[in-house]
Amino acid sequence: MKTRAAIAFEPNKPLVIEEVDLEGPKAGEVLVEIMATGICHTDAYTLEGKDSEGIFPSILGHEGAGIVREVGAGVTSVAPGDHVIPLYTPECRTCKTCLSQKSNLCTSIRATQGKGLMPDGTSRFSYKGQTLHHYMGCSTFSNFTVMPEIAVAKIRKDAPFDKACYIGCGVTTGVGAVIWTAGVEPGANVVVFGLGGIGLNVIQGAALVGADKIIGVDINPSKRQIAEQFGMTDFVNAAEVGASNVVDRIVELTGGGADYSFDCTGNTAVMRQALECCHRGWGTSVVIGVAEAGKEISTRPFQLVTGRIWKGSAFGGARGRTDTPKIVDWYMDKKINIDDLITHTLPLEKIDDAFDLMHEGKSIRSVVVF
Amino acid sequence: MKTRAAIAFEPNKPLVIEEVDLEGPKAGEVLVEIMATGICHTDAYTLEGKDSEGIFPSILGHEGAGIVREVGAGVTSVAPGDHVIPLYTPECRTCKTCLSQKSNLCTSIRATQGKGLMPDGTSRFSYKGQTLHHYMGCSTFSNFTVMPEIAVAKIRKDAPFDKACYIGCGVTTGVGAVIWTAGVEPGANVVVFGLGGIGLNVIQGAALVGADKIIGVDINPSKRQIAEQFGMTDFVNAAEVGASNVVDRIVELTGGGADYSFDCTGNTAVMRQALECCHRGWGTSVVIGVAEAGKEISTRPFQLVTGRIWKGSAFGGARGRTDTPKIVDWYMDKKINIDDLITHTLPLEKIDDAFDLMHEGKSIRSVVVF
Repeated sequence: MKTRAAIAFEPNKPLVIEEVDLEGPKAGEVLVEIMATGICHTDAYTLEGKDSEGIFPSILGHEGAGIVREVGAGVTSVAPGDHVIPLYTPECRTCKTCLSQKSNLCTSIRATQGKGLMPDGTSRFSYKGQTLHHYMGCSTFSNFTVMPEIAVAKIRKDAPFDKACYIGCGVTTGVGAVIWTAGVEPGANVVVFGLGGIGLNVIQGAALVGADKIIGVDINPSKRQIAEQFGMTDFVNAAEVGASNVVDRIVELTGGGADYSFDCTGNTAVMRQALECCHRGWGTSVVIGVAEAGKEISTRPFQLVTGRIWKGSAFGGARGRTDTPKIVDWYMDKKINIDDLITHTLPLEKIDDAFDLMHEGKSIRSVVVF
Repeated sequence: MKTRAAIAFEPNKPLVIEEVDLEGPKAGEVLVEIMATGICHTDAYTLEGKDSEGIFPSILGHEGAGIVREVGAGVTSVAPGDHVIPLYTPECRTCKTCLSQKSNLCTSIRATQGKGLMPDGTSRFSYKGQTLHHYMGCSTFSNFTVMPEIAVAKIRKDAPFDKACYIGCGVTTGVGAVIWTAGVEPGANVVVFGLGGIGLNVIQGAALVGADKIIGVDINPSKRQIAEQFGMTDFVNAAEVGASNVVDRIVELTGGGADYSFDCTGNTAVMRQALECCHRGWGTSVVIGVAEAGKEISTRPFQLVTGRIWKGSAFGGARGRTDTPKIVDWYMDKKINIDDLITHTLPLEKIDDAFDLMHEGKSIRSVVVF
């Protein structure tokens, strides 16, 4: 079949909107009509050639929502007409990692996904006979895409696609890190470094589970208003306080240190602050932000020996098919707010504008609707 | 009263055995007759002047066992005749940390203990009118010592002092890290870096809780035999394999990485290996070893984002009064072996020999009996 898609032919060039060829789903695969897709920093990271494992030409996009239109042989968990969120972290429920029940990082299709291919080692996309690679197993910058059955989460049909798509990455990454990675309990003090989209989702996750103090840290005070709207109780302006005083300020504000801290900046110096502002004895720091290649985190081991815990979170620790639909429910029940995070909605033809808005800091999340 | 004690007058000088003056217990304190004390690396670290917070003159020693001989006003939890282990990590059961139920690092007397004083801000020890400082709240290199009531663990009376004393530090640090800090479960794969006394206790802790593979890593193959006796199933000679290959070798041996790893070396480069040999998704690395002042640990944050957890352990995460007596029971029930770790037993007059044996690598643990 033919489908309209944004092709990334090479790094640092505008995406090209064309009709591309898409093969139908093979056994264990599903054809999904993408109804909306968010534009995430990770797409920009790859498009700018910063990801050493980025593959071109490809169809980017990994934060979508859509409708199953066709299923391949043997598919039993979804059927045509089902509404789904594509999952860049699948959930096979049979690999060592899924069966460990300790991690969401299903490994069943990791090798081929990393090569921009479907599990059988081939691509479904082509353009004028040239293979186009899949991206993060999703390629949601295409009106239709093909996904493995284990990489789609079936969601309720009354959820609007142009909001639900954000649950495919940003919302789950932030809210999930609070709930599934950190396990924040009611009454805890939470500190969030970086008040972009992920940080705001961490904040609303912390509010959802009943955290007491929710302290936001950013160098940009203009982020304060929306962060407060999402549940932030205290703001630390890191630029004003000075990097060397941030930890002391947080220890003071929390009466001893954070019970949980989250890095949503990707800055390794900030990751260290996030660990060291944790409470002696139990404070847990969760790295969410993706650091530049080659950068390392460091601290004195004494920080760990005296009880601080350093961990990380990918896709919020959420099991894709099991947990993502819960977040859709929470959105529909108004337990979490997505509407105010979607600042721009655009047609596919304007997708490059979405990248510009992101780089200029003018958007929280832009969504393309098909 | 007078008591015989080993005085550390200044760094890097032999200890001096003298009769010293000891004031009796004040309110909330107990007088303990020390029957035996281990000599630990931490004592040596302080004696050699490496601890920037070390205080002289003082009476060192923190790994003892003895008998309560007198109690001050208001003491209710122990009585004269009770057998006890002195606790450098007390358990008040009322401070924020104790009440958190998330940490054993009771803070109730931390400030004065760090200054070598009893909770009222004074010392009970003196020699010819000169104040001698307490050490780690214990000062077990004295035949009699005074401790806060919250810093003694009451133990069964049939446990031999010359073995039980080792539970006051080394045994609990190793066995406890497995049980209370890491929470190793049956069937887990465990990797132990450094096969000294702590490493051997980690190994027997892992065996106690039913770990499958218990891999020991050391640069000294002569440690292999006793490690196997304590439950090690596989040995990696880090000197032979080469530092850059240790992680790969462990990932291979464990079929993907360690479920739990423990650093018992204090070497920050080894701490990094211990983290990075952990299994993607859930592997947890516990820092036990104490690093040189100023040394830092580091890694790529990707290691955490992909599910590895970095934490630390002090006194094995054991609550002193609650958990230490359980380890005494396990020893008496022959669930753990202490006898083969006590390689030398000496009178107080030979205590400097114990430090020599330690430095020459000729002992696992030396114990002074009074």
